[in-house]
Amino acid sequence: MRIARVIGSVVSTVKSEELTGAKLLVVAPLGETHAVEPYVAVDTVGAGRGEVVLVAMGGAARLVQRQSSQAPVDSTIVAIVDRLETEAWVNYVKD
Amino acid sequence: MRIARVIGSVVSTVKSEELTGAKLLVVAPLGETHAVEPYVAVDTVGAGRGEVVLVAMGGAARLVQRQSSQAPVDSTIVAIVDRLETEAWVNYVKD
Amino acid sequence: MRIARVIGSVVSTVKSEELTGAKLLVVAPLGETHAVEPYVAVDTVGAGRGEVVLVAMGGAARLVQRQSSQAPVDSTIVAIVDRLETEAWVNYVKD
Amino acid sequence: MRIARVIGSVVSTVKSEELTGAKLLVVAPLGETHAVEPYVAVDTVGAGRGEVVLVAMGGAARLVQRQSSQAPVDSTIVAIVDRLETEAWVNYVKD
Amino acid sequence: MRIARVIGSVVSTVKSEELTGAKLLVVAPLGETHAVEPYVAVDTVGAGRGEVVLVAMGGAARLVQRQSSQAPVDSTIVAIVDRLETEAWVNYVKD
Repeated sequence: MRIARVIGSVVSTVKSEELTGAKLLVVAPLGETHAVEPYVAVDTVGAGRGEVVLVAMGGAARLVQRQSSQAPVDSTIVAIVDRLETEAWVNYVKD
Repeated sequence: MRIARVIGSVVSTVKSEELTGAKLLVVAPLGETHAVEPYVAVDTVGAGRGEVVLVAMGGAARLVQRQSSQAPVDSTIVAIVDRLETEAWVNYVKD
Repeated sequence: MRIARVIGSVVSTVKSEELTGAKLLVVAPLGETHAVEPYVAVDTVGAGRGEVVLVAMGGAARLVQRQSSQAPVDSTIVAIVDRLETEAWVNYVKD
Repeated sequence: MRIARVIGSVVSTVKSEELTGAKLLVVAPLGETHAVEPYVAVDTVGAGRGEVVLVAMGGAARLVQRQSSQAPVDSTIVAIVDRLETEAWVNYVKD
Repeated sequence: MRIARVIGSVVSTVKSEELTGAKLLVVAPLGETHAVEPYVAVDTVGAGRGEVVLVAMGGAARLVQRQSSQAPVDSTIVAIVDRLETEAWVNYVKD
Protein backbone atom coordinates (compact mmCIF):
# COMPACT_ATOMS: atom_id res chain seq x y z
CA MET A 1 0.00 0.00 0.00
CA ARG A 2 1.19 3.49 -0.72
CA ILE A 3 1.85 5.95 2.08
CA ALA A 4 0.25 9.31 1.35
CA ARG A 5 -1.03 12.46 2.99
CA VAL A 6 -4.54 13.80 2.42
CA ILE A 7 -4.04 17.25 0.89
CA GLY A 8 -7.48 18.15 -0.41
CA SER A 9 -10.73 17.15 -1.99
CA VAL A 10 -12.47 17.00 -5.34
CA VAL A 11 -15.94 18.12 -6.37
CA SER A 12 -17.38 16.51 -9.49
CA THR A 13 -20.95 16.73 -10.77
CA VAL A 14 -20.60 14.89 -14.06
CA LYS A 15 -19.19 11.45 -13.35
CA SER A 16 -19.64 7.77 -13.85
CA GLU A 17 -22.79 6.84 -11.92
CA GLU A 18 -20.98 4.09 -10.04
CA LEU A 19 -19.08 6.90 -8.26
CA THR A 20 -22.19 8.62 -6.88
CA GLY A 21 -21.76 9.17 -3.16
CA ALA A 22 -18.08 8.25 -3.10
CA LYS A 23 -15.88 10.59 -1.02
CA LEU A 24 -13.03 11.60 -3.29
CA LEU A 25 -9.86 12.91 -1.61
CA VAL A 26 -6.65 14.21 -3.13
CA VAL A 27 -3.60 12.48 -1.67
CA ALA A 28 0.12 13.04 -2.22
CA PRO A 29 3.23 10.97 -1.60
CA LEU A 30 4.77 11.61 1.81
CA GLY A 31 8.36 11.69 0.67
CA GLU A 32 10.40 13.81 -1.61
CA THR A 33 10.05 11.73 -4.73
CA HIS A 34 8.55 13.35 -7.77
CA ALA A 35 7.81 10.10 -9.52
CA VAL A 36 4.20 10.09 -8.36
CA GLU A 37 2.14 13.23 -8.40
CA PRO A 38 -0.99 13.76 -6.30
CA TYR A 39 -3.91 11.51 -7.19
CA VAL A 40 -7.47 10.87 -6.07
CA ALA A 41 -8.49 8.04 -3.74
CA VAL A 42 -11.89 7.01 -2.44
CA ASP A 43 -12.07 7.32 1.35
CA THR A 44 -13.70 4.44 3.23
CA VAL A 45 -12.28 5.04 6.72
CA GLY A 46 -13.17 8.67 7.48
CA ALA A 47 -9.79 10.24 6.75
CA GLY A 48 -9.39 14.01 7.11
CA ARG A 49 -7.17 16.61 5.56
CA GLY A 50 -3.59 16.49 6.76
CA GLU A 51 -3.76 12.89 7.93
CA VAL A 52 -1.32 10.27 6.72
CA VAL A 53 -3.07 7.25 5.22
CA LEU A 54 -2.45 3.95 3.44
CA VAL A 55 -3.84 3.67 -0.07
CA ALA A 56 -4.59 0.32 -1.75
CA MET A 57 -4.06 0.43 -5.51
CA GLY A 58 -5.47 -1.61 -8.40
CA GLY A 59 -7.76 -4.56 -7.76
CA ALA A 60 -7.08 -4.25 -4.01
CA ALA A 61 -8.93 -0.93 -4.09
CA ARG A 62 -12.15 -2.79 -4.84
CA LEU A 63 -11.87 -5.31 -2.01
CA VAL A 64 -13.18 -3.06 0.73
CA GLN A 65 -16.49 -3.98 2.31
CA ARG A 66 -18.05 -0.56 2.23
CA GLN A 67 -17.42 -0.19 -1.47
CA SER A 68 -18.88 -1.95 -4.48
CA SER A 69 -16.43 -4.31 -6.12
CA GLN A 70 -17.92 -3.14 -9.41
CA ALA A 71 -17.11 0.59 -9.10
CA PRO A 72 -14.44 2.02 -11.45
CA VAL A 73 -12.08 2.71 -8.55
CA ASP A 74 -8.32 2.05 -8.60
CA SER A 75 -7.25 3.80 -5.36
CA THR A 76 -8.88 3.45 -1.94
CA ILE A 77 -7.80 4.75 1.46
CA VAL A 78 -7.78 1.66 3.69
CA ALA A 79 -6.09 2.91 6.88
CA ILE A 80 -5.36 6.08 8.84
CA VAL A 81 -1.78 6.00 10.12
CA ASP A 82 -1.22 6.69 13.83
CA ARG A 83 2.50 6.21 13.83
CA LEU A 84 5.15 5.57 11.24
CA GLU A 85 8.55 4.48 12.50
CA THR A 86 11.43 4.23 10.07
CA GLU A 87 15.17 4.65 10.32
CA ALA A 88 16.32 6.47 7.30
CA TRP A 89 13.30 8.09 5.85
CA VAL A 90 10.60 9.93 7.75
CA ASN A 91 8.90 9.51 11.09
CA TYR A 92 5.37 10.57 11.81
CA VAL A 93 3.06 10.64 14.79
CA LYS A 94 -0.57 11.63 14.31
CA ASP A 95 -1.53 14.60 16.55
CA MET B 1 -7.75 7.76 -9.94
CA ARG B 2 -5.29 9.98 -11.74
CA ILE B 3 -5.92 13.70 -12.13
CA ALA B 4 -5.35 14.81 -15.71
CA ARG B 5 -6.23 17.51 -18.19
CA VAL B 6 -7.69 16.75 -21.61
CA ILE B 7 -5.17 18.13 -24.10
CA GLY B 8 -6.25 16.64 -27.40
CA SER B 9 -7.68 13.78 -29.37
CA VAL B 10 -6.62 10.81 -31.46
CA VAL B 11 -7.84 9.62 -34.85
CA SER B 12 -7.25 5.96 -35.67
CA THR B 13 -8.67 4.00 -38.58
CA VAL B 14 -6.88 0.71 -38.11
CA LYS B 15 -7.59 -0.55 -34.62
CA SER B 16 -8.78 -3.46 -32.56
CA GLU B 17 -12.47 -3.86 -33.43
CA GLU B 18 -13.47 -3.74 -29.77
CA LEU B 19 -12.46 -0.05 -29.86
CA THR B 20 -14.87 0.91 -32.67
CA GLY B 21 -16.87 3.92 -31.62
CA ALA B 22 -14.79 4.65 -28.53
CA LYS B 23 -13.96 8.35 -28.03
CA LEU B 24 -10.21 8.49 -27.51
CA LEU B 25 -8.81 11.58 -25.78
CA VAL B 26 -5.22 12.53 -25.00
CA VAL B 27 -4.77 13.47 -21.35
CA ALA B 28 -1.77 14.79 -19.44
CA PRO B 29 -0.84 14.95 -15.76
CA LEU B 30 -1.90 18.20 -14.14
CA GLY B 31 1.26 18.74 -12.15
CA GLU B 32 4.87 19.30 -12.92
CA THR B 33 6.01 15.73 -12.73
CA HIS B 34 7.63 14.22 -15.75
CA ALA B 35 7.21 10.67 -14.60
CA VAL B 36 4.06 10.17 -16.62
CA GLU B 37 3.77 11.45 -20.15
CA PRO B 38 0.47 12.12 -21.94
CA TYR B 39 -1.60 9.02 -22.61
CA VAL B 40 -4.92 8.09 -24.18
CA ALA B 41 -8.11 7.47 -22.22
CA VAL B 42 -11.59 6.48 -23.36
CA ASP B 43 -14.13 9.17 -22.53
CA THR B 44 -17.44 7.99 -21.07
CA VAL B 45 -18.65 11.24 -19.47
CA GLY B 46 -18.52 13.79 -22.30
CA ALA B 47 -15.27 15.51 -21.33
CA GLY B 48 -13.97 18.34 -23.51
CA ARG B 49 -10.58 19.76 -24.32
CA GLY B 50 -9.08 21.76 -21.46
CA GLU B 51 -11.19 20.15 -18.77
CA VAL B 52 -9.66 18.49 -15.75
CA VAL B 53 -10.82 14.91 -15.30
CA LEU B 54 -10.34 11.79 -13.20
CA VAL B 55 -8.99 8.75 -15.01
CA ALA B 56 -9.49 5.19 -13.75
CA MET B 57 -6.58 2.89 -14.62
CA GLY B 58 -6.27 -0.86 -15.06
CA GLY B 59 -9.20 -3.16 -14.37
CA ALA B 60 -11.16 -0.18 -12.98
CA ALA B 61 -11.20 1.27 -16.49
CA ARG B 62 -13.45 -1.59 -17.60
CA LEU B 63 -16.03 -1.21 -14.82
CA VAL B 64 -17.96 1.63 -16.37
CA GLN B 65 -21.53 0.92 -17.46
CA ARG B 66 -21.36 2.56 -20.84
CA GLN B 67 -18.32 0.53 -21.83
CA SER B 68 -17.87 -3.15 -22.53
CA SER B 69 -15.96 -4.92 -19.79
CA GLN B 70 -14.33 -6.91 -22.59
CA ALA B 71 -12.75 -4.01 -24.50
CA PRO B 72 -8.92 -3.73 -24.44
CA VAL B 73 -9.06 -0.48 -22.45
CA ASP B 74 -6.77 0.37 -19.53
CA SER B 75 -7.64 4.07 -18.99
CA THR B 76 -11.14 5.57 -18.79
CA ILE B 77 -12.26 9.09 -17.90
CA VAL B 78 -14.80 8.58 -15.10
CA ALA B 79 -15.40 12.15 -13.84
CA ILE B 80 -15.16 15.78 -14.90
CA VAL B 81 -13.68 17.85 -12.09
CA ASP B 82 -15.58 20.98 -11.03
CA ARG B 83 -13.30 21.98 -8.23
CA LEU B 84 -10.04 20.76 -6.83
CA GLU B 85 -9.01 22.11 -3.44
CA THR B 86 -5.57 21.33 -2.11
CA GLU B 87 -3.12 23.09 0.17
CA ALA B 88 0.26 22.69 -1.24
CA TRP B 89 -0.19 21.65 -4.81
CA VAL B 90 -2.61 23.17 -7.29
CA ASN B 91 -6.13 24.57 -7.09
CA TYR B 92 -8.57 24.49 -9.92
CA VAL B 93 -12.08 25.73 -10.60
CA LYS B 94 -13.82 24.77 -13.82
CA ASP B 95 -14.99 27.84 -15.80
CA MET C 1 -3.57 3.37 -23.45
CA ARG C 2 0.02 4.44 -23.88
CA ILE C 3 1.12 6.38 -26.94
CA ALA C 4 4.28 4.88 -28.45
CA ARG C 5 6.28 4.64 -31.62
CA VAL C 6 7.34 1.33 -33.14
CA ILE C 7 11.15 1.45 -33.17
CA GLY C 8 12.11 -2.14 -33.90
CA SER C 9 11.55 -5.82 -33.51
CA VAL C 10 12.62 -8.79 -31.42
CA VAL C 11 13.68 -12.27 -32.47
CA SER C 12 13.39 -14.99 -29.84
CA THR C 13 13.72 -18.73 -30.34
CA VAL C 14 13.48 -19.91 -26.75
CA LYS C 15 10.25 -18.63 -25.30
CA SER C 16 7.10 -19.55 -23.48
CA GLU C 17 5.11 -21.68 -25.93
CA GLU C 18 2.03 -19.48 -25.54
CA LEU C 19 4.02 -16.81 -27.40
CA THR C 20 4.64 -18.92 -30.51
CA GLY C 21 3.63 -16.96 -33.59
CA ALA C 22 3.18 -13.66 -31.75
CA LYS C 23 4.66 -10.65 -33.56
CA LEU C 24 6.84 -8.89 -31.02
CA LEU C 25 7.64 -5.22 -31.65
CA VAL C 26 9.82 -2.83 -29.68
CA VAL C 27 7.98 0.41 -28.89
CA ALA C 28 9.13 3.61 -27.20
CA PRO C 29 7.33 6.52 -25.57
CA LEU C 30 6.66 9.35 -27.98
CA GLY C 31 7.58 12.16 -25.64
CA GLU C 32 10.69 13.26 -23.86
CA THR C 33 10.08 11.48 -20.61
CA HIS C 34 12.66 9.02 -19.44
CA ALA C 35 10.40 7.35 -16.93
CA VAL C 36 9.50 4.55 -19.32
CA GLU C 37 12.13 2.92 -21.48
CA PRO C 38 11.37 0.98 -24.67
CA TYR C 39 9.42 -2.22 -24.14
CA VAL C 40 7.97 -5.04 -26.20
CA ALA C 41 4.33 -5.23 -27.29
CA VAL C 42 2.46 -7.87 -29.26
CA ASP C 43 1.15 -6.47 -32.54
CA THR C 44 -2.43 -7.41 -33.50
CA VAL C 45 -3.20 -4.64 -36.00
CA GLY C 46 -0.35 -4.84 -38.52
CA ALA C 47 1.75 -1.95 -37.24
CA GLY C 48 5.03 -1.12 -38.98
CA ARG C 49 8.28 0.46 -37.95
CA GLY C 50 8.04 4.21 -37.43
CA GLU C 51 4.29 4.23 -36.89
CA VAL C 52 2.71 5.74 -33.81
CA VAL C 53 0.43 3.30 -32.01
CA LEU C 54 -1.72 2.86 -28.92
CA VAL C 55 -0.65 0.14 -26.51
CA ALA C 56 -3.03 -1.48 -24.02
CA MET C 57 -1.31 -2.54 -20.82
CA GLY C 58 -2.07 -5.15 -18.15
CA GLY C 59 -5.24 -7.22 -18.34
CA ALA C 60 -6.47 -5.04 -21.23
CA ALA C 61 -3.64 -6.48 -23.33
CA ARG C 62 -5.36 -9.88 -23.22
CA LEU C 63 -8.80 -8.66 -24.32
CA VAL C 64 -8.06 -8.56 -28.02
CA GLN C 65 -9.93 -10.99 -30.22
CA ARG C 66 -7.00 -12.16 -32.28
CA GLN C 67 -5.02 -13.08 -29.20
CA SER C 68 -5.52 -15.78 -26.60
CA SER C 69 -6.69 -14.39 -23.29
CA GLN C 70 -4.40 -16.99 -21.71
CA ALA C 71 -1.09 -15.84 -23.21
CA PRO C 72 1.50 -14.27 -20.86
CA VAL C 73 1.16 -10.88 -22.55
CA ASP C 74 1.00 -7.55 -20.72
CA SER C 75 1.32 -5.10 -23.65
CA THR C 76 -0.61 -5.22 -26.93
CA ILE C 77 -0.75 -2.75 -29.81
CA VAL C 78 -4.48 -2.06 -30.29
CA ALA C 79 -4.50 0.88 -32.71
CA ILE C 80 -2.41 2.61 -35.36
CA VAL C 81 -2.62 6.38 -34.92
CA ASP C 82 -3.51 8.45 -37.99
CA ARG C 83 -3.54 11.80 -36.31
CA LEU C 84 -2.74 13.10 -32.87
CA GLU C 85 -3.89 16.62 -32.07
CA THR C 86 -2.78 18.22 -28.83
CA GLU C 87 -2.09 21.77 -27.69
CA ALA C 88 0.94 21.73 -25.58
CA TRP C 89 2.68 18.50 -26.31
CA VAL C 90 3.25 16.95 -29.71
CA ASN C 91 1.28 16.76 -32.94
CA TYR C 92 1.56 13.93 -35.39
CA VAL C 93 0.10 13.05 -38.76
CA LYS C 94 0.80 9.63 -40.25
CA ASP C 95 2.39 9.89 -43.72
CA MET D 1 8.98 -9.21 -7.37
CA ARG D 2 10.52 -6.06 -6.04
CA ILE D 3 13.68 -6.14 -3.95
CA ALA D 4 13.32 -4.00 -0.83
CA ARG D 5 14.68 -3.50 2.65
CA VAL D 6 12.45 -3.41 5.72
CA ILE D 7 12.98 0.04 7.23
CA GLY D 8 10.17 0.35 9.74
CA SER D 9 6.62 -0.31 10.76
CA VAL D 10 3.21 1.28 10.80
CA VAL D 11 0.64 1.54 13.56
CA SER D 12 -2.95 2.13 12.49
CA THR D 13 -6.08 1.93 14.63
CA VAL D 14 -8.69 3.08 12.14
CA LYS D 15 -8.50 0.84 9.11
CA SER D 16 -10.44 -1.36 6.76
CA GLU D 17 -11.56 -4.35 8.86
CA GLU D 18 -10.08 -6.80 6.37
CA LEU D 19 -6.66 -5.54 7.53
CA THR D 20 -7.18 -6.42 11.20
CA GLY D 21 -4.22 -8.43 12.44
CA ALA D 22 -2.10 -7.81 9.37
CA LYS D 23 1.56 -6.98 10.13
CA LEU D 24 2.29 -3.82 8.19
CA LEU D 25 5.95 -3.04 7.45
CA VAL D 26 7.52 -0.07 5.70
CA VAL D 27 9.89 -1.16 2.94
CA ALA D 28 12.18 0.83 0.65
CA PRO D 29 13.92 0.09 -2.65
CA LEU D 30 17.42 -1.28 -2.17
CA GLY D 31 19.06 0.74 -4.91
CA GLU D 32 19.65 4.35 -5.58
CA THR D 33 16.59 5.01 -7.69
CA HIS D 34 14.16 7.61 -6.54
CA ALA D 35 11.35 6.46 -8.77
CA VAL D 36 9.74 4.46 -5.98
CA GLU D 37 9.47 5.84 -2.48
CA PRO D 38 8.99 3.70 0.62
CA TYR D 39 5.68 1.87 0.78
CA VAL D 40 3.84 -0.53 3.08
CA ALA D 41 3.73 -4.29 2.59
CA VAL D 42 1.99 -7.00 4.58
CA ASP D 43 4.47 -9.43 6.09
CA THR D 44 3.64 -13.12 5.83
CA VAL D 45 7.10 -14.65 6.38
CA GLY D 46 8.30 -13.09 9.64
CA ALA D 47 10.60 -10.44 8.20
CA GLY D 48 12.46 -8.13 10.56
CA ARG D 49 13.80 -4.61 10.36
CA GLY D 50 16.92 -4.30 8.21
CA GLU D 51 16.30 -7.49 6.28
CA VAL D 52 16.19 -7.55 2.51
CA VAL D 53 12.98 -9.08 1.19
CA LEU D 54 11.04 -9.80 -2.00
CA VAL D 55 7.69 -8.07 -2.34
CA ALA D 56 4.89 -9.34 -4.61
CA MET D 57 2.78 -6.54 -6.04
CA GLY D 58 -0.79 -6.36 -7.36
CA GLY D 59 -2.91 -9.49 -7.63
CA ALA D 60 0.15 -11.61 -6.71
CA ALA D 61 0.05 -10.03 -3.25
CA ARG D 62 -3.24 -11.81 -2.59
CA LEU D 63 -2.07 -15.29 -3.60
CA VAL D 64 -0.32 -16.12 -0.36
CA GLN D 65 -1.77 -18.91 1.72
CA ARG D 66 -1.63 -17.17 5.05
CA GLN D 67 -3.54 -14.20 3.74
CA SER D 68 -7.13 -13.79 2.60
CA SER D 69 -7.44 -13.39 -1.14
CA GLN D 70 -10.20 -10.89 -0.34
CA ALA D 71 -8.14 -8.40 1.70
CA PRO D 72 -7.44 -4.97 0.15
CA VAL D 73 -3.72 -5.69 -0.07
CA ASP D 74 -1.51 -4.81 -3.06
CA SER D 75 1.97 -5.53 -1.61
CA THR D 76 3.03 -8.63 0.32
CA ILE D 77 6.46 -9.75 1.53
CA VAL D 78 6.86 -13.26 0.13
CA ALA D 79 10.54 -14.05 0.81
CA ILE D 80 13.45 -13.10 3.06
CA VAL D 81 16.63 -12.80 1.00
CA ASP D 82 19.71 -14.70 2.25
CA ARG D 83 22.00 -13.77 -0.57
CA LEU D 84 21.80 -11.53 -3.59
CA GLU D 85 24.50 -11.95 -6.21
CA THR D 86 24.70 -9.50 -9.08
CA GLU D 87 27.49 -8.14 -11.23
CA ALA D 88 26.85 -4.51 -11.72
CA TRP D 89 24.48 -3.50 -9.03
CA VAL D 90 24.63 -4.50 -5.38
CA ASN D 91 25.57 -7.62 -3.49
CA TYR D 92 24.09 -8.59 -0.19
CA VAL D 93 24.56 -11.35 2.34
CA LYS D 94 22.20 -11.61 5.29
CA ASP D 95 24.10 -11.56 8.62
CA MET E 1 6.76 -7.13 -21.87
CA ARG E 2 9.79 -5.47 -20.36
CA ILE E 3 13.21 -5.89 -21.89
CA ALA E 4 15.81 -6.76 -19.25
CA ARG E 5 19.19 -8.35 -18.75
CA VAL E 6 19.78 -11.14 -16.24
CA ILE E 7 22.35 -9.74 -13.81
CA GLY E 8 22.27 -12.21 -10.94
CA SER E 9 20.38 -14.53 -8.68
CA VAL E 10 18.70 -14.67 -5.30
CA VAL E 11 18.93 -17.24 -2.55
CA SER E 12 16.06 -17.34 -0.08
CA THR E 13 15.35 -19.97 2.55
CA VAL E 14 12.39 -18.41 4.31
CA LYS E 15 9.71 -17.74 1.74
CA SER E 16 6.09 -18.23 0.84
CA GLU E 17 5.70 -21.96 0.20
CA GLU E 18 4.14 -21.36 -3.21
CA LEU E 19 7.62 -20.17 -4.28
CA THR E 20 9.39 -23.42 -3.39
CA GLY E 21 11.44 -24.58 -6.35
CA ALA E 22 11.04 -21.37 -8.33
CA LYS E 23 14.24 -20.12 -9.98
CA LEU E 24 14.57 -16.50 -8.94
CA LEU E 25 16.76 -14.27 -11.10
CA VAL E 26 17.70 -10.62 -10.70
CA VAL E 27 17.04 -8.64 -13.88
CA ALA E 28 17.74 -5.03 -14.78
CA PRO E 29 16.45 -2.66 -17.46
CA LEU E 30 18.59 -2.70 -20.58
CA GLY E 31 18.59 1.03 -21.16
CA GLU E 32 19.81 4.03 -19.31
CA THR E 33 16.63 4.87 -17.50
CA HIS E 34 16.69 4.94 -13.75
CA ALA E 35 12.95 4.77 -13.33
CA VAL E 36 13.01 1.03 -12.74
CA GLU E 37 15.65 -0.55 -10.55
CA PRO E 38 16.63 -4.21 -10.71
CA TYR E 39 13.90 -6.62 -9.67
CA VAL E 40 13.38 -10.37 -9.34
CA ALA E 41 11.63 -12.51 -11.95
CA VAL E 42 10.84 -16.21 -12.00
CA ASP E 43 12.62 -17.98 -14.84
CA THR E 44 10.59 -20.48 -16.85
CA VAL E 45 12.69 -20.67 -20.02
CA GLY E 46 16.19 -21.49 -18.79
CA ALA E 47 17.71 -18.01 -18.96
CA GLY E 48 21.31 -17.49 -17.92
CA ARG E 49 23.31 -14.64 -16.53
CA GLY E 50 24.07 -11.93 -19.08
CA GLU E 51 21.25 -12.88 -21.40
CA VAL E 52 18.65 -10.38 -22.53
CA VAL E 53 15.11 -11.54 -21.81
CA LEU E 54 11.48 -10.49 -21.99
CA VAL E 55 9.64 -10.26 -18.67
CA ALA E 56 5.85 -10.47 -18.37
CA MET E 57 4.49 -8.39 -15.51
CA GLY E 58 1.32 -8.56 -13.40
CA GLY E 59 -1.35 -11.14 -14.17
CA ALA E 60 0.51 -12.09 -17.36
CA ALA E 61 3.30 -13.45 -15.16
CA ARG E 62 0.95 -16.19 -13.96
CA LEU E 63 -0.18 -17.35 -17.40
CA VAL E 64 2.82 -19.51 -18.12
CA GLN E 65 2.23 -23.22 -18.39
CA ARG E 66 5.15 -24.34 -16.27
CA GLN E 67 4.08 -22.15 -13.40
CA SER E 68 1.12 -22.34 -11.07
CA SER E 69 -1.43 -19.62 -11.74
CA GLN E 70 -1.83 -19.46 -7.97
CA ALA E 71 1.75 -18.56 -7.03
CA PRO E 72 2.41 -15.04 -5.67
CA VAL E 73 4.47 -14.09 -8.72
CA ASP E 74 4.25 -10.76 -10.54
CA SER E 75 7.26 -11.03 -12.90
CA THR E 76 8.14 -14.00 -15.11
CA ILE E 77 10.81 -14.40 -17.79
CA VAL E 78 8.89 -15.59 -20.86
CA ALA E 79 11.50 -15.32 -23.65
CA ILE E 80 15.24 -15.26 -24.26
CA VAL E 81 16.09 -12.60 -26.83
CA ASP E 82 18.26 -13.64 -29.79
CA ARG E 83 18.25 -10.35 -31.57
CA LEU E 84 16.90 -6.89 -30.87
CA GLU E 85 16.82 -4.46 -33.76
CA THR E 86 15.93 -0.85 -33.12
CA GLU E 87 16.83 2.45 -34.73
CA ALA E 88 17.41 4.91 -32.02
CA TRP E 89 17.94 2.94 -28.91
CA VAL E 90 20.08 -0.17 -28.54
CA ASN E 91 20.85 -3.16 -30.72
CA TYR E 92 21.71 -6.55 -29.36
CA VAL E 93 22.72 -9.89 -30.77
CA LYS E 94 23.01 -12.89 -28.43
CA ASP E 95 26.47 -14.48 -28.60
